[in-house]
Amino acid sequence: MQEKLTLMIPGPTPVPEKVLQAFAKHPIGHRSKEFQAIVQRTTEKLKWLHQTKGDVLTITGSGTAAMEAGIINTLSKGDKVLCGDNGKFGERWVKVSKAYGLNVEVVKAKWGAPLNPESFRKALQEDINKEFKAVILTHSETSTGVINDLEAINQHVKEHGHAITIADCVTSLGACNVPIDEWGLDVVASGSQKGYMIPPGLSFVAMNRRAWEAQKKSDLPKFYLDLNTYRKTCDKNSNPFTPSVNLYFALDAALEMMEAEGLTKIFARHSRHRQATQQAMKAIGLELFADDGYGSPAITAVKTENFDAEDLRKIIKSKFDILLAGGQDHMKGKIFRIGHLGYVNDRDIITAVAAIEASLDSLNLLKNQIGAGVAAAAKVLS
Amino acid sequence: MQEKLTLMIPGPTPVPEKVLQAFAKHPIGHRSKEFQAIVQRTTEKLKWLHQTKGDVLTITGSGTAAMEAGIINTLSKGDKVLCGDNGKFGERWVKVSKAYGLNVEVVKAKWGAPLNPESFRKALQEDINKEFKAVILTHSETSTGVINDLEAINQHVKEHGHAITIADCVTSLGACNVPIDEWGLDVVASGSQKGYMIPPGLSFVAMNRRAWEAQKKSDLPKFYLDLNTYRKTCDKNSNPFTPSVNLYFALDAALEMMEAEGLTKIFARHSRHRQATQQAMKAIGLELFADDGYGSPAITAVKTENFDAEDLRKIIKSKFDILLAGGQDHMKGKIFRIGHLGYVNDRDIITAVAAIEASLDSLNLLKNQIGAGVAAAAKVLS
Repeated sequence: MQEKLTLMIPGPTPVPEKVLQAFAKHPIGHRSKEFQAIVQRTTEKLKWLHQTKGDVLTITGSGTAAMEAGIINTLSKGDKVLCGDNGKFGERWVKVSKAYGLNVEVVKAKWGAPLNPESFRKALQEDINKEFKAVILTHSETSTGVINDLEAINQHVKEHGHAITIADCVTSLGACNVPIDEWGLDVVASGSQKGYMIPPGLSFVAMNRRAWEAQKKSDLPKFYLDLNTYRKTCDKNSNPFTPSVNLYFALDAALEMMEAEGLTKIFARHSRHRQATQQAMKAIGLELFADDGYGSPAITAVKTENFDAEDLRKIIKSKFDILLAGGQDHMKGKIFRIGHLGYVNDRDIITAVAAIEASLDSLNLLKNQIGAGVAAAAKVLS
Repeated sequence: MQEKLTLMIPGPTPVPEKVLQAFAKHPIGHRSKEFQAIVQRTTEKLKWLHQTKGDVLTITGSGTAAMEAGIINTLSKGDKVLCGDNGKFGERWVKVSKAYGLNVEVVKAKWGAPLNPESFRKALQEDINKEFKAVILTHSETSTGVINDLEAINQHVKEHGHAITIADCVTSLGACNVPIDEWGLDVVASGSQKGYMIPPGLSFVAMNRRAWEAQKKSDLPKFYLDLNTYRKTCDKNSNPFTPSVNLYFALDAALEMMEAEGLTKIFARHSRHRQATQQAMKAIGLELFADDGYGSPAITAVKTENFDAEDLRKIIKSKFDILLAGGQDHMKGKIFRIGHLGYVNDRDIITAVAAIEASLDSLNLLKNQIGAGVAAAAKVLS
């Protein structure tokens, strides 16, 4: 039943009916005062969500556009940057940096492991001439379900004193605490189809004072992603180019729901769902892909050493109308990923766990007694 | 009555109910086979709409992103380009070209006048060393309601033999005939909230063989707008980044409606609406802003020499719930613009004309007898 499909991938995430209804209204003029009111309201709420008094700018584009904007608006050709890479998105920021002629030094960790803050500390401490202009990293690495210790790494950047931090918080913002001003994160990128609970097509870049200072010196060419034009128009509650008007309607409704729930409860819900999912997988007899203690609040990746993860995903989709994510690149078939990001309730978790158990059973792959996973999840959720 | 608002601006344009319903479905996974089928179907239909066997790539972003992509994927730093500028969008392509370090020579015409093909012929003929790598221009200049003679200008580019043509067809594609392969247009950009009849947030770039040859030599930095990655993923019915899934739903439904109507009828409808609007404005005693014979099929700009166009727009919006566009930049208050692009029927035209007459009358600005405009429009529409 395609119409009953439930998304449990790391994005697009499920969209609340209220948000979908706001989304489906006829577009209005993007230069009208009615639309300006929406830009003003969403900008204020975005600052609340980002826990910042700095700027949060909205771009019509994918999360990658926001992250690229963060990089190309603060750096210049030949600038030395330190880039974390422990998954597909870390890899992507290395590629973006190289595409623009930056001088990239990479801190690597294997897929499934977190980035080691010590490696950053060392590299930054050794940089006596203060050549590093930026440290670029992913907070929640969607491809592996690993949460990196952004707080600790950023602390080392602050000790360095010259580099700025450019963080991909695409699947952490709205899932766990990312207090931008308190931590002093300079550039933070995110995307609409994640914790925001709205369809894909908008992305966001938070820029603080230090980021704008870096922006003044940046010489990389840009036009559509020139954040200075977004800042100028945002100050007038407008946009430099025709924005995705309907996604703004959705954003407005979704941020209102998020405000009503409150950040503390949102983060607690994601944390509970992470724990329930992790415990359930272990009770089923499956191994988690992320190192212990580094599971993302947005997504749990699960190893499938003795079977093809794609077989399981197919059954769960065709039989139970639940879409799980597969492994990316070399991990295809070796892991599956359960998204628990955004508009997800306890029922979704317990349903996904039950469907995984039933499907494994139908494939004769269940080691433990059927129901053990649901029991473990229920225990956490109760 | 905000909920009854009718858009008669050059974009966003009105969205058909059937399209809005498709748009408002819950998102599905962008890597699923169901979504791949949509990408395949829309790509085929886009080629039909573009009258091309070449590539038509879909970007999540505004029309400016598509136009910028066309420029930065085919050119290199320092390349000499010839850029047409007779309005806000012509100006914009000069700015984009300069932002990327291109060597820009500009062919200008005053706002309201068309670009003179002779000026292009002359500049290209004088380019004996074949230094021009591209001719960049806007087909329908939205800011002034002028249609430029793209066919004639492109013919001069073909005679030059070395430069490629990069055309902004944002408000001409789907409004009048733009036979890409027949004319040999190399790069054509357009946006979703125009003739496509869907909300803003997607844009399109058509690239032919010559454009891809230029792409191989292009050295301008890019990542999100790197069309080579769009081509590679499009060949697999996919996207390089998470696309605006719901806008794809809408695009699929809208292109189906367009196919059912057929290109000939769509172009005839826009031509009829242009003529009806022009005749009505003249009958009211207002002057057209575009030079005679150069009115855009998408938008009619009207001069308001003895009054502030913004006063008229306000009354028409508050009293009749019709949103007309104002003048941009230095033309603000001096012209208003009637959009007749996309999902517009004869009723919309006659309604807009009637509302303009009634509003002018209420402002004591009507020179001729009330009803003269409607009569003139009706005569064309009958």
